[in-house]
Amino acid sequence: MLVLGIDPGSRVLGYALLRGQGSALLLEQAGVFRLARYEDGYPRWRELFLGVGDLMKTYSPEQTALEAPFYGRNVQSMLKLGRAQGMVIAASILHEIPFSEYSPRQVKKSVTGRGSASKEQVAGMLGRLMKLPSNLPLDATDAIAVGVCHLFNTKI
Amino acid sequence: MLVLGIDPGSRVLGYALLRGQGSALLLEQAGVFRLARYEDGYPRWRELFLGVGDLMKTYSPEQTALEAPFYGRNVQSMLKLGRAQGMVIAASILHEIPFSEYSPRQVKKSVTGRGSASKEQVAGMLGRLMKLPSNLPLDATDAIAVGVCHLFNTKI
Repeated sequence: MLVLGIDPGSRVLGYALLRGQGSALLLEQAGVFRLARYEDGYPRWRELFLGVGDLMKTYSPEQTALEAPFYGRNVQSMLKLGRAQGMVIAASILHEIPFSEYSPRQVKKSVTGRGSASKEQVAGMLGRLMKLPSNLPLDATDAIAVGVCHLFNTKI
Repeated sequence: MLVLGIDPGSRVLGYALLRGQGSALLLEQAGVFRLARYEDGYPRWRELFLGVGDLMKTYSPEQTALEAPFYGRNVQSMLKLGRAQGMVIAASILHEIPFSEYSPRQVKKSVTGRGSASKEQVAGMLGRLMKLPSNLPLDATDAIAVGVCHLFNTKI
């Protein structure tokens, strides 16, 4: 199964295309969309919606898995986060790719066994589960983690 | 110019198709999507994204105008509101319809001259500006208001 893992923020969105074959995990592609160079507005969401859609067209993942926090610092950042999540959900609907979401705690627990694990512990465990490129941005690592979480939870 | 005015909430989304011809305003269609019958999740956003897209395909509006509050009661409701806005923004991108957003205060000021006008004052002014059906839901009225706001601000 090929999973598109996504960790959306309002400034950077991390993505990872992760294949699960039996007990083996293979990272096919990972990266980030940097959205901070735009003011909040139409071009920013356009880039995100079309960019995520291009990933779906190019790689044909069978599932989208989204890391979706339910709490945040303030209402402004949550509104932007909701819009960013909305672009990913809409692209999944358009390309007819089933969609799951997981809280940060669920992701950490699935990957490390502990919901309170640090980012470093999550990254360390991912490095033991699969071969990772050395220069991955942190947001792409989070996207890999939610992809792994989905694969572990669907028991392929 | 035909404008699709949208007032998105997390439970009900109001829409209005409003034509401005010279100084005349004509309401072509208005209604609501009621989303509260679903739990928060994929089917709800699917209905909204595809439903708004169907309106765009059926009526071919030249512009989408969105009422977009920047503040809210809590982070949870703002996350849902952001997702609902995201469905409308993504549908506009997909159907290549330019997109504008206005704060509730801008909408009230454009329609009535006062940013602090009540909902009743806004509805009363809309009834003087155009012929309205008698049984409009309140959320559709808000969608008409943001459409009028856009038409007044683009000076057609």
